[in-house]
Amino acid sequence: MSPLSNDTFLRALMREPTDYTPLWLMRQAGRYLPEYCATRKRAGSFLQLCKSPGMACEVTLQPLERYDLDAAILFSDILTVPDAMGLGLYFEEGEGPKFERPLKDENDIRRLTAPDPHDELQYVMDAVSEIRRALDGRVPLIGFSGSPWTLSCYMVEGGSSSDYRKVKSLMYSRPELMHQVLDVTAQAVTTYLNAQIQAGAQAVMVFDSWGGVMSHDAYREFSLRYLRIIAQGLIREHEGRRVPAIVFTKGGGLWLEDIADTGYDAVGLDWTMDLGKARALVGHRVALQGNLDPAVLFASPDAVAEQARRVLDSFGNHPGHVFNLGHGISQFTPPENVSVLVDTVHQYSRQIRTAR
Amino acid sequence: MSPLSNDTFLRALMREPTDYTPLWLMRQAGRYLPEYCATRKRAGSFLQLCKSPGMACEVTLQPLERYDLDAAILFSDILTVPDAMGLGLYFEEGEGPKFERPLKDENDIRRLTAPDPHDELQYVMDAVSEIRRALDGRVPLIGFSGSPWTLSCYMVEGGSSSDYRKVKSLMYSRPELMHQVLDVTAQAVTTYLNAQIQAGAQAVMVFDSWGGVMSHDAYREFSLRYLRIIAQGLIREHEGRRVPAIVFTKGGGLWLEDIADTGYDAVGLDWTMDLGKARALVGHRVALQGNLDPAVLFASPDAVAEQARRVLDSFGNHPGHVFNLGHGISQFTPPENVSVLVDTVHQYSRQIRTAR
Repeated sequence: MSPLSNDTFLRALMREPTDYTPLWLMRQAGRYLPEYCATRKRAGSFLQLCKSPGMACEVTLQPLERYDLDAAILFSDILTVPDAMGLGLYFEEGEGPKFERPLKDENDIRRLTAPDPHDELQYVMDAVSEIRRALDGRVPLIGFSGSPWTLSCYMVEGGSSSDYRKVKSLMYSRPELMHQVLDVTAQAVTTYLNAQIQAGAQAVMVFDSWGGVMSHDAYREFSLRYLRIIAQGLIREHEGRRVPAIVFTKGGGLWLEDIADTGYDAVGLDWTMDLGKARALVGHRVALQGNLDPAVLFASPDAVAEQARRVLDSFGNHPGHVFNLGHGISQFTPPENVSVLVDTVHQYSRQIRTAR
Repeated sequence: MSPLSNDTFLRALMREPTDYTPLWLMRQAGRYLPEYCATRKRAGSFLQLCKSPGMACEVTLQPLERYDLDAAILFSDILTVPDAMGLGLYFEEGEGPKFERPLKDENDIRRLTAPDPHDELQYVMDAVSEIRRALDGRVPLIGFSGSPWTLSCYMVEGGSSSDYRKVKSLMYSRPELMHQVLDVTAQAVTTYLNAQIQAGAQAVMVFDSWGGVMSHDAYREFSLRYLRIIAQGLIREHEGRRVPAIVFTKGGGLWLEDIADTGYDAVGLDWTMDLGKARALVGHRVALQGNLDPAVLFASPDAVAEQARRVLDSFGNHPGHVFNLGHGISQFTPPENVSVLVDTVHQYSRQIRTAR
């Protein structure tokens, strides 16, 4: 593998000084890019796109052709693991992900086992290897997975939910069964992320997208605990270099201090938390990733630049910040606003460092 | 008007000692009650139900017939104010509220004026008076309104939104126009709540349901500022008694200290925040209202009782707690679980006080 020509992102994650603040965007390879839509159309469906290593590689690289981003992220779906567990992932046009065979009862739960990443999930590893070759050392590649809690929500609900009625009923009424689902899923996620690292992922991120829907106590018992188990099981060095791990609980700002003690190198934040306050709470323990409101990108170019500078100012002149949105980029984002964002972050963060 | 035979709720809001923790439930007159569904069917539509003082009074009292609740809340909708501003509120079966004439451009915004509560909104005042007579001093009646920010979201988006694209574009690109909408709306909400107080509401609550979707800075500028203006304009004494005001920003836990300094007597909290931590932050400055996850009510009666005790334990043995859910009760709640909740809160909170 070629040596990295831009490792700013990896160094920021390890709280090392960098010349500027690196950035990438959650869902950076997505529907706001016409070239992505073209490839997706060719693939026939979103799932076919995920399952074809060649096309997954193609769309992973598309945003890097347009913008000076500091990391690539594997194009895939957070629900590949439960799909490989036999739940039958599918997408209906215009709707969220669904499972053909959700976990309906105790029997379904008792039968659940962690999949072999080199069997049902080999297509993901093939995509990782192919992307690494195509990147040729340009920027690091991030691998990822959904968190055990987030995957379990989908596995029990059978799809998205507005009230999490089924999974929360299970959690409150039959906590031992809920833990059984989470145990198996945490084991599956750990193995899956380690296989991605061995295939070439240079950092990994766990998306706890639904962690924020839980109560303070339930979050600790049913999400954080399994995030910690994963952190403990991850390969932390590969190709002679630290493989940083990032955790992101959407809506988890209130629990930041606990999240920062879970064993990850960096914590992702949504836009509800002031980065300066966040940094005051966690100090140098972890890097922080975030946290522009993705809705800023719907506004005027001037507003985009102003709000991006605000985020950089709130973090201040310290090592350990990776700029990102606080959530995935919207399909309605004007692509030209992303150029403004990338340029502003790079230029203004250099200015902040010089003004020291 | 008859004197109050149960003023526990009002005293708890003023941080005075009470024999037990009072409770009421957001949306307590709602679709989980078969008797509510029957009245709504008779009314023809949700909006007709809101606009008929007789039927609004009937459903307001229904949950009090079933459960030993410590407050009644006016049956109405948070969007009555923009409806009275001429935006044309309507509901389509199975969907959220919508406006026929949302704020589309600068002209629409410049034309916006605060409605006279004794003109277009007289039906609300009539309902308040009728409910007060029907309550006959049993428990206090809460009046309410949506917050300026929350109302503005609906007014600009034209209905519910998943990404707040229109209103956030306006906020970031044309902040002066956004402030114009919020100014008029804050004035309208203040007048509206004062009219409710004069008609007989013994406490008022402002629902900032969408405050939590903003960034840290934007929340202060576009929501908190207007919540403060309302607090400053409210009638604080009526019928020889303090009229406590409650503010509830869903998803506002991270901003609790600022919210507590806005001039309200009590702050509502959703279930993501530990009540003990919350109390440690605000001390005796404000009462706290909340914060059981409404999804707990989908679980077994034992789980309901256990989780209710947990919430009471987290607040501890201090004055100034009103028990509630962290969000409106779901239509899928089994009514018998609400009995378990009410009895547990009353009994266990008496125990906590005795154990002192």
